[in-house]
Amino acid sequence: MTDPTFRDDMTVQLVKHSAADEDVVFAARVSTKGAESLPTGTFGPAEKGLINFLMRDRHGSPFEHNSMTLYVEAPIFVLREWQRHRVASYNEESARYRELKPVFYLPADDRKVVQVGRPGRYTFEPGTRMQRYTARRSIEMSAYEAWAYYREMLGEGIAREVARSVLPVSIYSSMYVTLNARSLMHFLSLRTEEEAARFPSHPQREIAMCAEQVEAIFAELMPVTYAAFQANGRVAP
Amino acid sequence: MTDPTFRDDMTVQLVKHSAADEDVVFAARVSTKGAESLPTGTFGPAEKGLINFLMRDRHGSPFEHNSMTLYVEAPIFVLREWQRHRVASYNEESARYRELKPVFYLPADDRKVVQVGRPGRYTFEPGTRMQRYTARRSIEMSAYEAWAYYREMLGEGIAREVARSVLPVSIYSSMYVTLNARSLMHFLSLRTEEEAARFPSHPQREIAMCAEQVEAIFAELMPVTYAAFQANGRVAP
Amino acid sequence: MTDPTFRDDMTVQLVKHSAADEDVVFAARVSTKGAESLPTGTFGPAEKGLINFLMRDRHGSPFEHNSMTLYVEAPIFVLREWQRHRVASYNEESARYRELKPVFYLPADDRKVVQVGRPGRYTFEPGTRMQRYTARRSIEMSAYEAWAYYREMLGEGIAREVARSVLPVSIYSSMYVTLNARSLMHFLSLRTEEEAARFPSHPQREIAMCAEQVEAIFAELMPVTYAAFQANGRVAP
Amino acid sequence: MTDPTFRDDMTVQLVKHSAADEDVVFAARVSTKGAESLPTGTFGPAEKGLINFLMRDRHGSPFEHNSMTLYVEAPIFVLREWQRHRVASYNEESARYRELKPVFYLPADDRKVVQVGRPGRYTFEPGTRMQRYTARRSIEMSAYEAWAYYREMLGEGIAREVARSVLPVSIYSSMYVTLNARSLMHFLSLRTEEEAARFPSHPQREIAMCAEQVEAIFAELMPVTYAAFQANGRVAP
Repeated sequence: MTDPTFRDDMTVQLVKHSAADEDVVFAARVSTKGAESLPTGTFGPAEKGLINFLMRDRHGSPFEHNSMTLYVEAPIFVLREWQRHRVASYNEESARYRELKPVFYLPADDRKVVQVGRPGRYTFEPGTRMQRYTARRSIEMSAYEAWAYYREMLGEGIAREVARSVLPVSIYSSMYVTLNARSLMHFLSLRTEEEAARFPSHPQREIAMCAEQVEAIFAELMPVTYAAFQANGRVAP
Repeated sequence: MTDPTFRDDMTVQLVKHSAADEDVVFAARVSTKGAESLPTGTFGPAEKGLINFLMRDRHGSPFEHNSMTLYVEAPIFVLREWQRHRVASYNEESARYRELKPVFYLPADDRKVVQVGRPGRYTFEPGTRMQRYTARRSIEMSAYEAWAYYREMLGEGIAREVARSVLPVSIYSSMYVTLNARSLMHFLSLRTEEEAARFPSHPQREIAMCAEQVEAIFAELMPVTYAAFQANGRVAP
Repeated sequence: MTDPTFRDDMTVQLVKHSAADEDVVFAARVSTKGAESLPTGTFGPAEKGLINFLMRDRHGSPFEHNSMTLYVEAPIFVLREWQRHRVASYNEESARYRELKPVFYLPADDRKVVQVGRPGRYTFEPGTRMQRYTARRSIEMSAYEAWAYYREMLGEGIAREVARSVLPVSIYSSMYVTLNARSLMHFLSLRTEEEAARFPSHPQREIAMCAEQVEAIFAELMPVTYAAFQANGRVAP
Repeated sequence: MTDPTFRDDMTVQLVKHSAADEDVVFAARVSTKGAESLPTGTFGPAEKGLINFLMRDRHGSPFEHNSMTLYVEAPIFVLREWQRHRVASYNEESARYRELKPVFYLPADDRKVVQVGRPGRYTFEPGTRMQRYTARRSIEMSAYEAWAYYREMLGEGIAREVARSVLPVSIYSSMYVTLNARSLMHFLSLRTEEEAARFPSHPQREIAMCAEQVEAIFAELMPVTYAAFQANGRVAP
């Protein structure tokens, strides 16, 4: 029997893509150029200006003709939030079809664990050493105990889909998500902490940890689009 | 401190709706009648025949001009499957914004707990008394233990969003889901056990328990549409 | 043979709905109240405040648990723009299944017909009397001529789906559209002239004429939600 | 002034893609293999069998982790039908932002022009020589006349968005469409003539001409997926 292991980080890995700033340009230019809009491979100030104009004036559809596929490992409570974004494609590891691995999320010691304020208008504080210790110990112990019940049931020949019901939402699962830049920007606009400054109903820290990695991948694949997104207040077009 | 309680059933309750067989008819008739298609309140054999024709020939869009809002209580592992259906609107209880209630799913004694066969081609067997006892006791005990950790953390002032990570996916959550008949039929086509006969990759029993209630609500609100769905092999148009 | 007739207005008519401000409230409150969120019929300052908070902080999903079905008559060039909005259900009159009616769009005399400026940054001017006369006469004459060809082909026994290809995009068609408040607000944010002040790429006047009627219907059904939309810059959450 | 030209064919051209049979495999295998499902580059009988199983049992989501972008030229009446498919991204040439080219659809002489039977249960017949002549001459003449009005208005300085209302739906427009294999198969299942055998409400010949080209592109990019689609009755999973 494998023992539980613990992580305090998230995996977001680019698996494949067809996504470049040029894709925004050819899609947009069909409006004014028809067949002459087909990709040419040139990209200069005019193309940059066009992308900025589209973002500013909320022309959303040109940002959809591209595709990124990510492999993600995160605890179930994070995947639950992520999968509420409907303009994307998901396939996830199944606790019905396979035995899960005993990998659980244990917050790092610098994860703030005390919430101050009321719903919609609160901040997080580090908490005392004792509070952080209690949190970490409880999460750790509960994982060990849940895992023991899970293994016991499997050992007795009980179906995985029944046994899995004892597992906590801190257990890691994995998924592929495929989405386009418009949907990705919408995700960033709701799930990163930059938003916390404007909207007091923060994203939870753990999904923000994923979103930051998504943002880095996006910024590298489509730097001009990303810069325009930043320059226009991080609101998806 | 409240003690855990256990349920072996699901709640699916109709909250509001604007859904009747007549809605399919007026939507379809705009094709051939334009303005004369506006609802008239008459419904007879011609209307019934039209609905059957639309279902058979897979004209899907006329089945979308209606709306049903359901209130659902089910364990998290069921809501996870449900929310993968993207053509619907969801709002769910938040374990970040409120303390959850200690209500957990404990399978009834007749829930078959042993899976025989390989992925994609298996059946479920009741299992021995001992197996069923082990399953029920493990699920029950793990709920008690997880709940104790959860309460301890909250008692120490730790944020709900941190504490909730120890809770198992057997805990109940609640949500509203709003969807139209076309999306609902697609849900039924994948999540009821009638499908198991045709497709060996069964829905899990617990989501089928929800789907059966959805089906009963749908059959009452739109009986002619439901009959046509049945008559055409339970495949959504 | 019927002669062409001309209109300079659009029809947008509420056919049925299940949409009220209360629907936003119960959907949102499930986050914090679970089962206690079920509709109670009370609506006061707290409910109003909640709706405003949701709009401001871009919590979009509570605005989806409602449904409005509209009957629309507009020229094809308007329906083309409208149907690009994908989060909605459409059924339209079919020129394959029925002979269309000879009703065409002829702009009113106060429709500005001259465009000044470059793409993305232009205004419309009334134009000279001569220009307005040319526009109206050309549109009128072309409708008569196209209609004559259409009727001639139908008279010769040629299929409607072939004959219809001569009809201009100024001909009226009719459709039903069903959508929720969130999608409707997104439509308003792009298709009304209030937007023209902020975004120089205007909606065309004719779809704005439809959007104004949609807006009036929405403001009457969901006045608090509408006020919050206005107060938050007419951007859909 | 350019004179109208006529075409009887459709353009469907692959612009870019990230789509291969392997994409279905890695997405599906995350269910049972988690991280070990990452693409390996091997593709043999097991992978083929998996794709066939997924198609047969209607596991749709693994067919979504891929992307194809097509450039299309077709008459407006075809694009209107195409754009009703909502699970795809579109950008189209704009008759508001540019002057259209005078290219019109003129059916080839072998296009059957006479419809026999009633809605939902009809066939097409070639028609007499006279009927085919009438159809072709009417469509041709109407294009010339509409184009003359259009050019006259533009010559007088009238805005493109006003002038375009005289143009018939036979005029060609161009668009980009980006979609995944699942959505593409759904499109094929409704818009190709293979379907006519099963469902008497045929797709119109002209959109089927596009769909045939889409099908050829798909069959080349994802041959195993395409074969599975064929083998399972051409119904999208």
